[in-house]
Amino acid sequence: MNATMGWDDDKPHEECGVFGVWNGGDAAALTALGLHALQHRGQEAAGIVTLDEKGLFHAHKGLGLVGDNFGEAKVIASLRGSAAVGHNRYATTGETALRNVQPLYADFEFGGFAVAHNGNLTNAYALKRALVRRGCLFQSTTDSEVFVHLIAISLYSTVLDRLIDALKQVQGAYSLVALHNGALIGARDPLGVRPLVLGRLANGGHVLASETCALDIVSAEFVRDIEAGEVVIIDDSGVRSVKPFGRNAGRFCIFEYIYFARPDSVMEGTPVYETRKRIGAELSRESGVAADVVVPVPDSGVPAAMGYAAEAGIPFELGIIRNHYVGRTFIEPTDQIRHLGVKLKHSANRPILEGKRVILVDDSIVRGTTSRKIVEMVRQAGAKEVHMRISSPPTTHSCYYGIDTPERSQLMAAQHDVAEMARIIGVDSLAFISLDGLYRALGRPARDPAKPEFCDACFTGDYAIPLTDWQDNSDRQLSLLQPAGQ
Amino acid sequence: MNATMGWDDDKPHEECGVFGVWNGGDAAALTALGLHALQHRGQEAAGIVTLDEKGLFHAHKGLGLVGDNFGEAKVIASLRGSAAVGHNRYATTGETALRNVQPLYADFEFGGFAVAHNGNLTNAYALKRALVRRGCLFQSTTDSEVFVHLIAISLYSTVLDRLIDALKQVQGAYSLVALHNGALIGARDPLGVRPLVLGRLANGGHVLASETCALDIVSAEFVRDIEAGEVVIIDDSGVRSVKPFGRNAGRFCIFEYIYFARPDSVMEGTPVYETRKRIGAELSRESGVAADVVVPVPDSGVPAAMGYAAEAGIPFELGIIRNHYVGRTFIEPTDQIRHLGVKLKHSANRPILEGKRVILVDDSIVRGTTSRKIVEMVRQAGAKEVHMRISSPPTTHSCYYGIDTPERSQLMAAQHDVAEMARIIGVDSLAFISLDGLYRALGRPARDPAKPEFCDACFTGDYAIPLTDWQDNSDRQLSLLQPAGQ
Amino acid sequence: MNATMGWDDDKPHEECGVFGVWNGGDAAALTALGLHALQHRGQEAAGIVTLDEKGLFHAHKGLGLVGDNFGEAKVIASLRGSAAVGHNRYATTGETALRNVQPLYADFEFGGFAVAHNGNLTNAYALKRALVRRGCLFQSTTDSEVFVHLIAISLYSTVLDRLIDALKQVQGAYSLVALHNGALIGARDPLGVRPLVLGRLANGGHVLASETCALDIVSAEFVRDIEAGEVVIIDDSGVRSVKPFGRNAGRFCIFEYIYFARPDSVMEGTPVYETRKRIGAELSRESGVAADVVVPVPDSGVPAAMGYAAEAGIPFELGIIRNHYVGRTFIEPTDQIRHLGVKLKHSANRPILEGKRVILVDDSIVRGTTSRKIVEMVRQAGAKEVHMRISSPPTTHSCYYGIDTPERSQLMAAQHDVAEMARIIGVDSLAFISLDGLYRALGRPARDPAKPEFCDACFTGDYAIPLTDWQDNSDRQLSLLQPAGQ
Amino acid sequence: MNATMGWDDDKPHEECGVFGVWNGGDAAALTALGLHALQHRGQEAAGIVTLDEKGLFHAHKGLGLVGDNFGEAKVIASLRGSAAVGHNRYATTGETALRNVQPLYADFEFGGFAVAHNGNLTNAYALKRALVRRGCLFQSTTDSEVFVHLIAISLYSTVLDRLIDALKQVQGAYSLVALHNGALIGARDPLGVRPLVLGRLANGGHVLASETCALDIVSAEFVRDIEAGEVVIIDDSGVRSVKPFGRNAGRFCIFEYIYFARPDSVMEGTPVYETRKRIGAELSRESGVAADVVVPVPDSGVPAAMGYAAEAGIPFELGIIRNHYVGRTFIEPTDQIRHLGVKLKHSANRPILEGKRVILVDDSIVRGTTSRKIVEMVRQAGAKEVHMRISSPPTTHSCYYGIDTPERSQLMAAQHDVAEMARIIGVDSLAFISLDGLYRALGRPARDPAKPEFCDACFTGDYAIPLTDWQDNSDRQLSLLQPAGQ
Repeated sequence: MNATMGWDDDKPHEECGVFGVWNGGDAAALTALGLHALQHRGQEAAGIVTLDEKGLFHAHKGLGLVGDNFGEAKVIASLRGSAAVGHNRYATTGETALRNVQPLYADFEFGGFAVAHNGNLTNAYALKRALVRRGCLFQSTTDSEVFVHLIAISLYSTVLDRLIDALKQVQGAYSLVALHNGALIGARDPLGVRPLVLGRLANGGHVLASETCALDIVSAEFVRDIEAGEVVIIDDSGVRSVKPFGRNAGRFCIFEYIYFARPDSVMEGTPVYETRKRIGAELSRESGVAADVVVPVPDSGVPAAMGYAAEAGIPFELGIIRNHYVGRTFIEPTDQIRHLGVKLKHSANRPILEGKRVILVDDSIVRGTTSRKIVEMVRQAGAKEVHMRISSPPTTHSCYYGIDTPERSQLMAAQHDVAEMARIIGVDSLAFISLDGLYRALGRPARDPAKPEFCDACFTGDYAIPLTDWQDNSDRQLSLLQPAGQ
Repeated sequence: MNATMGWDDDKPHEECGVFGVWNGGDAAALTALGLHALQHRGQEAAGIVTLDEKGLFHAHKGLGLVGDNFGEAKVIASLRGSAAVGHNRYATTGETALRNVQPLYADFEFGGFAVAHNGNLTNAYALKRALVRRGCLFQSTTDSEVFVHLIAISLYSTVLDRLIDALKQVQGAYSLVALHNGALIGARDPLGVRPLVLGRLANGGHVLASETCALDIVSAEFVRDIEAGEVVIIDDSGVRSVKPFGRNAGRFCIFEYIYFARPDSVMEGTPVYETRKRIGAELSRESGVAADVVVPVPDSGVPAAMGYAAEAGIPFELGIIRNHYVGRTFIEPTDQIRHLGVKLKHSANRPILEGKRVILVDDSIVRGTTSRKIVEMVRQAGAKEVHMRISSPPTTHSCYYGIDTPERSQLMAAQHDVAEMARIIGVDSLAFISLDGLYRALGRPARDPAKPEFCDACFTGDYAIPLTDWQDNSDRQLSLLQPAGQ
Repeated sequence: MNATMGWDDDKPHEECGVFGVWNGGDAAALTALGLHALQHRGQEAAGIVTLDEKGLFHAHKGLGLVGDNFGEAKVIASLRGSAAVGHNRYATTGETALRNVQPLYADFEFGGFAVAHNGNLTNAYALKRALVRRGCLFQSTTDSEVFVHLIAISLYSTVLDRLIDALKQVQGAYSLVALHNGALIGARDPLGVRPLVLGRLANGGHVLASETCALDIVSAEFVRDIEAGEVVIIDDSGVRSVKPFGRNAGRFCIFEYIYFARPDSVMEGTPVYETRKRIGAELSRESGVAADVVVPVPDSGVPAAMGYAAEAGIPFELGIIRNHYVGRTFIEPTDQIRHLGVKLKHSANRPILEGKRVILVDDSIVRGTTSRKIVEMVRQAGAKEVHMRISSPPTTHSCYYGIDTPERSQLMAAQHDVAEMARIIGVDSLAFISLDGLYRALGRPARDPAKPEFCDACFTGDYAIPLTDWQDNSDRQLSLLQPAGQ
Repeated sequence: MNATMGWDDDKPHEECGVFGVWNGGDAAALTALGLHALQHRGQEAAGIVTLDEKGLFHAHKGLGLVGDNFGEAKVIASLRGSAAVGHNRYATTGETALRNVQPLYADFEFGGFAVAHNGNLTNAYALKRALVRRGCLFQSTTDSEVFVHLIAISLYSTVLDRLIDALKQVQGAYSLVALHNGALIGARDPLGVRPLVLGRLANGGHVLASETCALDIVSAEFVRDIEAGEVVIIDDSGVRSVKPFGRNAGRFCIFEYIYFARPDSVMEGTPVYETRKRIGAELSRESGVAADVVVPVPDSGVPAAMGYAAEAGIPFELGIIRNHYVGRTFIEPTDQIRHLGVKLKHSANRPILEGKRVILVDDSIVRGTTSRKIVEMVRQAGAKEVHMRISSPPTTHSCYYGIDTPERSQLMAAQHDVAEMARIIGVDSLAFISLDGLYRALGRPARDPAKPEFCDACFTGDYAIPLTDWQDNSDRQLSLLQPAGQ
């Protein structure tokens, strides 16, 4: 739960995207494309491990974007084979070492094994401590290595049994893809917090991916979502399914709909873009206000703003322009640049804003720092009134299930009520969609506190998976090595 | 007129952005910000030359984005002084050598001189040949060096007179900023084809920039556009204006409104974003068609699509999603990736398109290659009908005035009529805005062929500035050196 | 036993240098200096792990020279602490991945542990196979990781007992330095094949190093050689010694004297430079020949040539000049360069050679390829006769104890008798020092076959340590992962 | 005369090596090899310009060693043609910009022209000022660009006449090679201060090079030295010679024999290695002293020490070992490393020095800083007495003819007499060879002050070429641009 902020500043960050393919022809090229389509889920590093027809594994990993690492034909050519798993990583500062880049690979007694993982384990530390006591050596600081060790020491004989043995010991949220010499395996945690979908290639091969947009880019047909708690085994005889945790109702991450997922993805049967527009419309109904224009905070606020504007009958305008050439390099500014703050990324479209009553629509407020700067910019451009509408409920709790959010002490909504937030941000009014409104926009009547259908812990503090590692803080001495540079 | 295409493929490319500051405090930081706001005008290279209070000049240039080259505080700190000129370069393949990166600097008899230039000279080759015969040595292959030599050999004594002497000898389109030990100078060609604006800093200093968005980022107040054929001299006593070519009606580049300029800029008094919406509305009136959704080709087609949709009363939807993580590295694809073509940059939002009659709105068709791929993608996503509407007239002629366009033989509209184009692109209908409609959207009654108010040569072939170098092809032997690597 | 040749071509290669310090003030800087002095023992990669007063470990590793990786003050500053271990690596092609760079580090139950190792284990594969069966995961392809796993799973409780437990299971040649939260540990294998010396700093701290030249550079006083089979534990209470293998006669690598060690080092009480001169003198006595000049093959043949020339009463002359600017970059030559072969590194000093009877003195012949080229060059420079004298016996066997030598099939002396070698190399006469002569030059009467005092397996095939991994080739399937790029 | 010291610290530095080839087959490969053999004359940058059979020029330049820039086959392949000129550059800090790397190239009216230059002009500034007044634009800060402009503006019609016109206007020391579409040209200044030799390839082609060692590497036969004041024109009809300055006695740089040239070169008929030995012998006769060993300061002091030892009958021993792995990266040391000073590059061979009376032989003392550190190191290794003998006279004056030496204020011998120098350096005795002794070692009776045969200004202050730029300090304002980074 690192509070360090990445370069896309004041947003929660998805921690990973995964992709796997079996019988895919040029599996490395397909995986590179799939990871490219999932680039929004992690930009720090990317890796692919392939398996060729001789049973040999091939790997390539690197820091940076998929295109930076897999753009050269010779790299793709070196990753021989028709099966592969791949991974996009979002990582917090200081941990972006190459050794942490997934997929992780290990030589087991039964042969090679590669695994890539999206999510976060909540008892990883406890398990790691026990494994180290047993004599296991950890080489990375990722949760995912825990899976690998648990599989290595399992007393079961088949790979599948060993993997299930491992899954039964871990707690947390995970969607994983794994590859060994006989099959591609996909698995979701018992609550299905993180997404994973299955697709079919024209040639009969199969694909696993975090989102449907990664199926589209490789022209794979959507088959179905992997279910909560399901393990699928894909080999040359087809797709088998195992339910080691029995049948149980899942609680899919509601924030995927609000912000994380790409708008052209469909998650658990619900299209993301349409959902965001419905959330905007619901928000308009809940907290309408007289205004001249509805302006999204780009890019993520656009669909909700469109929904809001249509419902309210107020013109939708691009009053804020985003500069897409912002790289990582304006990170060491002089004082003079620092004062100009958020303007590096956004600029006000003055003719649209001047003299107007403006409704700004954004998807969330985390620390509130960016919101304050945007409001200031909009006012400097001449807006007469500024009303902010947020397409999520107040983010009052940290996520422990795979999303990089600040500690509660830094979450604005955990420290202040809405009126105070409005004052700090500097708006004439501020409103969030209600939790029930959000559920309604997702096609449910309202949230049933006895049996909520989504993981909404960041809004409610209702943590459905135990936070084991955070309840036992007695002994945190492992991994003292500070890699000064690799 | 190099026909090589850059990485943003099938669009014409602006060739440069310029920025200058006098009495600006930390001039280098301001210039870096200004160039960052102008990054859309050139991403190949960036350079800044500053002048400090001791009369010393300092320079830094590099290939890549502004942020890549000017992100470190120590670079900005090394560029001492309160006056500066800067330049963003778009360059065609093979010429991206560092020696071509502007601003160009020279030691003259009267002291140092730096110049940065947006545009293209049409008699540069003829002038260069004469200068070489005289014993002048060229070190770059840029047009801009011609200015420098003409100034160096001018028989006039003051810098200003020498510059005007040089301007009178060149033909072409240019907006330039120049810096010497006594002043910052800005100049536009007699027809004012390329833009240049003047702004004032809070401290009384002045700024010159290609677009108003670069004034906004440094919190400079817009003063006015530099006029066609005007030379402004900015020094500690203020701003002076000279009109060496007399008074004449300008012909500003109409394509700046359609595509090049940033939407939040205001050019010649006309806001760009609003203009694009008006063009879309006009286009809807001219060539309406029954449909279910209006979908922009992102990002440049968005405002025109909004205007079209509003005028037509058809829902505006983001049916195509753009992947902003496309870098330069997917340039060497395997065959398998190549077949997937345009999908690296765009993806279809299937739930929006499936079963619908779709109007696609884009700003231009150059070669048509991208349009065809986008239409194919939209059809694969299930669109029932696809109608394409273009917010510019057919691009039938190359630009010689500073925009990188292909030769006529590669311009689709120069080789085919609209019906054929529709067939090749694969749409059910295709329409371009009329030339008069475009003028109307810009607030004029219609185009007056006797006295057109804009440079619209790319649509009409009406080249207002002589194309000297293209009329004399006898002797093209200079610059035989092929720099194999620098 | 990889036969790939490094860039210093036709010589055997030392595989590593190690350095450790306890209570050394700025331990990282001392270690960087010590590794720099040991650079001749490995140029592929370098690494340092330090331990600070809070018990935290810090690491930095990189491919390339010590100076390339530890030249910046900020790197040294980040490696806090007064204790450290460091390593220079020589590695064969394809294995120069960063994950293989030592020191290796692991989090054990009892805390952090770092180890660096010079030598080669001869049962590493057998041990690795057993460890993998047990569920251990290997992350590198180095022998040294076997030590780490054996320590991790040992049932003993103290670090020292666990290390000794591990040492008792491995076979091979090793000198290692290890660091944990309580001590710096040094160890040599039971035969003491590879060197390790102990020194004392002015402040009372201690240093371990492969050679005395690394003590000199940090102004440490030489204390003594670590003995064969000895384990020393250095902590704040001083230096303790353990002899887990009992007392036994060692067999130090005789080739260290001939070629590997730096000439200013003193090994097992014998100064290297003087020894090389004595070998040259002995060689002259054994196989004198009438000649005009004695010319060393630089740089390593210089002391032997001096000894030879003095004994023979023939002038010593620098008839071959070495170009010290040869980098790694002439590795991809055009055909024309390839024909010019060895001349990139050596050139003939024609005025010295022309018309002369020349005795060339070199230290060894491995493949013979370089010797042939040098002789050809000397003849082209006009030498009338060329006699070659070698300051080692014929290299007829591969080394399995930490030196990179080709397979026997590529060792010239394993395939040809001396007369054939002379013919192939193109010399008028060729002679090697005798094995007894070599022992005499080292101050022994002659070699006692029943109880040889040195490891001379490369000359005799008398392998004193079992070659377990080479005797069981049944199952070589681990580590199938081909890292395509890291 | 920049006083900044390079990485090889306290030595004067040769400023360049040049190479040219006509009718050489793969001219680029030959030139790369020739420059590699001349690498000791400049390590900062290297460049090659070739001319192909179509009359097209091709160039590649880069910072760093020849091997770093020309090691890849594709680079050599891109440099098509059978004629070429190349250059190695030694440059002082701050001026190592790529634009200064030679050969310089220009498009003239008559076609392309490339020139590379070893030496230094003494009226470059005066000429540059005049040229700038005339309107010439300088792009580099090298003297060599003056040649190019003078040729460009010459009123003569042929290239040769223009070049001679230029040579007649410049003052200074230069050996240059130039290439145009009809010929390769070589020229030495009227006094022939810097070397240049002519060689012939087996195929009949010709080569020009700074030293004979560059002929040897490409298997070219030595033809003769280019004479002082001679211009040679090499084309397909053979070699022509022009003497534009008439016949005059040259004054070759005497320091080439002492230090700069490679020992296997032959200069003006005199072999360098033998000469250095003779200087050592003469030095021994002039200033013998009782001692146990003669020890060279490696590498440059070795031949003189051999000559000294042989003449004195005292054993020659390698008492100081040089570490050849010192790169450029130990330039930012921590304090602890800084204190260890010279030991990074040299180490004492303690067993040789301990308890001995040592004669150290070096070739020169510039600042004396390194000498002091070496003496300290030798004493710490236990030497009983340390006597230093220098194989050159005291360096009392700066060089203005192409060698990088400090200002007089930093030359130890310009500030102190020999007794003081001995005290500061810390030796028991210090002696330099006499000027007459040096001439004797070179085969002359003694120096004739009326007509000295060598340029020995660094020892005598007898500057044979006017120092125009240093006599007129009135106006030094050009080239104020400080390139902050390129």
